[in-house]
Amino acid sequence: MAPVDTNPATKKQIKNDGNLLTKYVPLLSWGRSYQKEWLTGDLLAGLIVAIMLVPQGMAYALLAGLPAQVGLYASIFPLLIYGLLGSSRVLAVGPVAIVSIMVAGAVGAIAEPGTAVYLQMALTLAFLAGLIQALMGLFRLGFLVNFLSHPVLAGFTSAAAIVIGFSQLKHLLGLSTPQLDFINTITYTSHHIAETNMTTLVIGLTGIIVLVYFKYALGGQLKRLGLPNHIRIPLTKSGPLVIVLLGTLAVLFLGLNQTASVKVVGEVPAGLPPLTIPSFDLSVWRTLLPTALTISFVGFMESFSVAKSLASKKRQHVESNQELFGLGMANLGAAFTGGYPVTGGFSRSVVNYEAGANTGLASIITAVLMALAVIFLTPLFYYLPQALLAAIILVAVVGLIDIKSFRHIWAYNKVDGISMIITFFSVLAVGIEAGILVGVAAAILLFVWRTSRPHVAIVGRMGNSQVYRNVLRHEVQTCPTAIAMRVDESLYFANTKYLEDTILAQVADNPEVNHLVLIATAVNFIDASALETLETLQAELRDSGVELHLAGIKGPVMDRLKQIGFVDHFGPQYIHFRTHDAMAAIGCLPE
Amino acid sequence: MAPVDTNPATKKQIKNDGNLLTKYVPLLSWGRSYQKEWLTGDLLAGLIVAIMLVPQGMAYALLAGLPAQVGLYASIFPLLIYGLLGSSRVLAVGPVAIVSIMVAGAVGAIAEPGTAVYLQMALTLAFLAGLIQALMGLFRLGFLVNFLSHPVLAGFTSAAAIVIGFSQLKHLLGLSTPQLDFINTITYTSHHIAETNMTTLVIGLTGIIVLVYFKYALGGQLKRLGLPNHIRIPLTKSGPLVIVLLGTLAVLFLGLNQTASVKVVGEVPAGLPPLTIPSFDLSVWRTLLPTALTISFVGFMESFSVAKSLASKKRQHVESNQELFGLGMANLGAAFTGGYPVTGGFSRSVVNYEAGANTGLASIITAVLMALAVIFLTPLFYYLPQALLAAIILVAVVGLIDIKSFRHIWAYNKVDGISMIITFFSVLAVGIEAGILVGVAAAILLFVWRTSRPHVAIVGRMGNSQVYRNVLRHEVQTCPTAIAMRVDESLYFANTKYLEDTILAQVADNPEVNHLVLIATAVNFIDASALETLETLQAELRDSGVELHLAGIKGPVMDRLKQIGFVDHFGPQYIHFRTHDAMAAIGCLPE
Repeated sequence: MAPVDTNPATKKQIKNDGNLLTKYVPLLSWGRSYQKEWLTGDLLAGLIVAIMLVPQGMAYALLAGLPAQVGLYASIFPLLIYGLLGSSRVLAVGPVAIVSIMVAGAVGAIAEPGTAVYLQMALTLAFLAGLIQALMGLFRLGFLVNFLSHPVLAGFTSAAAIVIGFSQLKHLLGLSTPQLDFINTITYTSHHIAETNMTTLVIGLTGIIVLVYFKYALGGQLKRLGLPNHIRIPLTKSGPLVIVLLGTLAVLFLGLNQTASVKVVGEVPAGLPPLTIPSFDLSVWRTLLPTALTISFVGFMESFSVAKSLASKKRQHVESNQELFGLGMANLGAAFTGGYPVTGGFSRSVVNYEAGANTGLASIITAVLMALAVIFLTPLFYYLPQALLAAIILVAVVGLIDIKSFRHIWAYNKVDGISMIITFFSVLAVGIEAGILVGVAAAILLFVWRTSRPHVAIVGRMGNSQVYRNVLRHEVQTCPTAIAMRVDESLYFANTKYLEDTILAQVADNPEVNHLVLIATAVNFIDASALETLETLQAELRDSGVELHLAGIKGPVMDRLKQIGFVDHFGPQYIHFRTHDAMAAIGCLPE
Repeated sequence: MAPVDTNPATKKQIKNDGNLLTKYVPLLSWGRSYQKEWLTGDLLAGLIVAIMLVPQGMAYALLAGLPAQVGLYASIFPLLIYGLLGSSRVLAVGPVAIVSIMVAGAVGAIAEPGTAVYLQMALTLAFLAGLIQALMGLFRLGFLVNFLSHPVLAGFTSAAAIVIGFSQLKHLLGLSTPQLDFINTITYTSHHIAETNMTTLVIGLTGIIVLVYFKYALGGQLKRLGLPNHIRIPLTKSGPLVIVLLGTLAVLFLGLNQTASVKVVGEVPAGLPPLTIPSFDLSVWRTLLPTALTISFVGFMESFSVAKSLASKKRQHVESNQELFGLGMANLGAAFTGGYPVTGGFSRSVVNYEAGANTGLASIITAVLMALAVIFLTPLFYYLPQALLAAIILVAVVGLIDIKSFRHIWAYNKVDGISMIITFFSVLAVGIEAGILVGVAAAILLFVWRTSRPHVAIVGRMGNSQVYRNVLRHEVQTCPTAIAMRVDESLYFANTKYLEDTILAQVADNPEVNHLVLIATAVNFIDASALETLETLQAELRDSGVELHLAGIKGPVMDRLKQIGFVDHFGPQYIHFRTHDAMAAIGCLPE
């Protein structure tokens, strides 16, 4: 059962009132009405997310080609800022896998991993992505991200998960594979598989087994033992912590980094994040802009879809523009405090929600705990094997491969299914960013293609009503000398020819017909190309002894037609308010 | 007054019957029913077009960077073939300006003008474009060319005319400007304007004045003199012939090519076209493919729109797939007989039509006359000044700059207007081919943008009828506790957010409302993203105490919704056949 929202502000938020400051700083809304009983949930959730985030932050930073501490830095100020400004109360912001691999791809192409330039490019990406998101939020351009359709996002996420998974093979096998694209990673790995470091592999596989056990089996066992939620949830989420601890101890006491060449995280500097300044070199901006745009969009979409689904469980509301603004400010925060691009993570947010987070305070608590971790715990990470961080990433991304969505989308609609499959394979074949662009382009072209072959129905009168419906679906009366044809699409350049062909074929098949009524109830606009076609069509039909009529044209469409003089030219007597009026004028109705 | 079609086959053609051979070889149709009185028109038209085509063919060949005779060769076999296979009876096929400049751009990038390689690349372009067109015709893919909307084509044609016009400046001024893009041509010309060859300029300007006089003034004067059409039309169209004759004589007798360095056409080999073989090198094909595609599409669109408008004046019919096939075969003919890509020219076709062409025989007569010209007349062309060919091109392309279309399209519809303007400036800025691609992409994106902000109308009941119309446009009754909202667009990823926001805003503005009826009469499909939004929206509204209803869903859309289980999940009681049924169920109708 979904918890009931006890905050009276929810409905007010939907009604979109409240003053401007409360609108842009949601903290002021939930802060003022904060209730004591929310605190336990916020504290517990903040703690559990921090426990997950310490190893994940480091793992994702390495995935992005950055030093481990950058992942920790990115988990402090951005979380504080999001806690104050985010419109979702349960979103857990921080480094995530997909954004990390995009950073690796873009920055890896222009700088050497491990250098100061690489670091600064990552900061700059966070800055640009943050700027784009914040500006989009302020200018209320949130609707733009809708051009990333669900099928495209589903195909993208699953493929990105596979790309990320394979990128971790090198850590799991202890190989020194360079930064390569998906296909070359597979080729390289298969050629060097003999060089596998067996100790590293054993550590990695053990880590995976433990994580899978914690993730999928432990919860049920603890439930059967009758443990209460607030003990059970922290335990099931502590898998990463457990393997990190055990792995670090094993390497430390067995000296595996020396004797068996097991790669470890190494020195992680202690202390709070440094103040940093992104690059303001315009040529750098130009180079990074495509990736920054992709990160803004994809990061926001991932984040917003989690936030929305969790909010709806609690009957709360998240507002897309505020969410963009909050995420954007979090990214700007990352840019100035040694971090790299962040967004709302799927699994961490679900954990945050399930652990009982009630407000942004949970996020703020996580941030404080992360700060304590970088101050006091970094010496512990020296002996942490990289293979275990790879194991954490692998187990996390497997959950992103969403076969159920694939099946569902394919079953509902082949066009959506095709755009999903195109995106999926494009990401594997040409990479994360180019892949998603191909996907978006495919979705748009498929949409155009779909509207270029509109559904056309011949309609008839239902009984003695004034309602006209498809002759193939309903018992209707038709008129022998007239065809009433409803076209279920706006008329525009891509479908004018199809419409013309369809109408001419109908007329050719029915030689006894001398009126054709084109019903435009589903026509939402007529563009200049279609207008020309209607005029030609009228002449062509008239020549075949058939008079073209238009019926059911909507107000806004009619206004245009009148304005341009089309109505006078076409003949007002051939334009009817409703199908019924047209049929009456033609003489198809009994007196 | 339009001549009346005396051929009984016309109506049959619309009805699309007849056997297969007659369908693919229209000659068999008009040939069998050829009437004696058509012959005069066909002969006269064939002659006049040949008189125009001799200088134009050479001029366009030079524009394409090819020797003058290539333009003549391209005016023999392609015309014969089109005369047999083309579905238009009056289209005058041959070299045209826009296709020529595309050949210059594509071939000029990979070969040196004047070389054998250049020539072979031009043949190969004709081969590829012909193959694409013929295959598209055979596989009935003619509808694809509709993705070139009228506004894009209008913007493209006007800009291409300007690009072509400026490319002729060098011939008019006697400069040796290399092959450059539009902007660099202007820059280069302005830097070298002092090197103008004044004799050449005088010849060119005189040519332009004479041509303009023939084109715009002579016809009226001859009409006032009472000359009959069959004398008047040949006279008005002989401007090019007159300047070519006078110019050639002037250069010959004054020795201007020697004394004043006036550039002349030079040696043109006599005799019928050689048999040639295009390149079958796949890497060459890959390089030329984008241009071949553009030529196929643009060439066909230009050709088809002329053919269609002339056919409709005679109440004849042109069939797009047959037209593609005919043009494609004509281009294949050009490829094997020393030519280069051809298409139906605008002005020549109009001349052909006005001179009385009745059937494809006119085209065949032109071809025979062109063959006689290359056999017997080529020695005459030696002293022909290039500036006069430039004058012919300039006067021809000025007519392509279509300001009236610009005004009309802009007045009708800003979205169409914008795509036209984008295409226009893209062609000037980035060139002919990239420009048209930008235009097509812009038209598609603008279409998506337009559908992403659909028109939404609150509707009410008209009197006691069962008709519901927009409250802002009609005197209607509404119900205080329910909003009936008609959305005038299919629901898909790009507009789901807009719809959601609009609905939530309506509900927020009307606190007394507890039912919202979404009327889907104009919804032609609901994609996977929109489906998800509808489910979320139902939950969100229900939480605000508002029940969401759907009404007027069309058959095909409903089938999908049922199939995926949406109807059961949403609640069949909230889905109504008509708006009226929904209002009755809600209790908004008097008993």
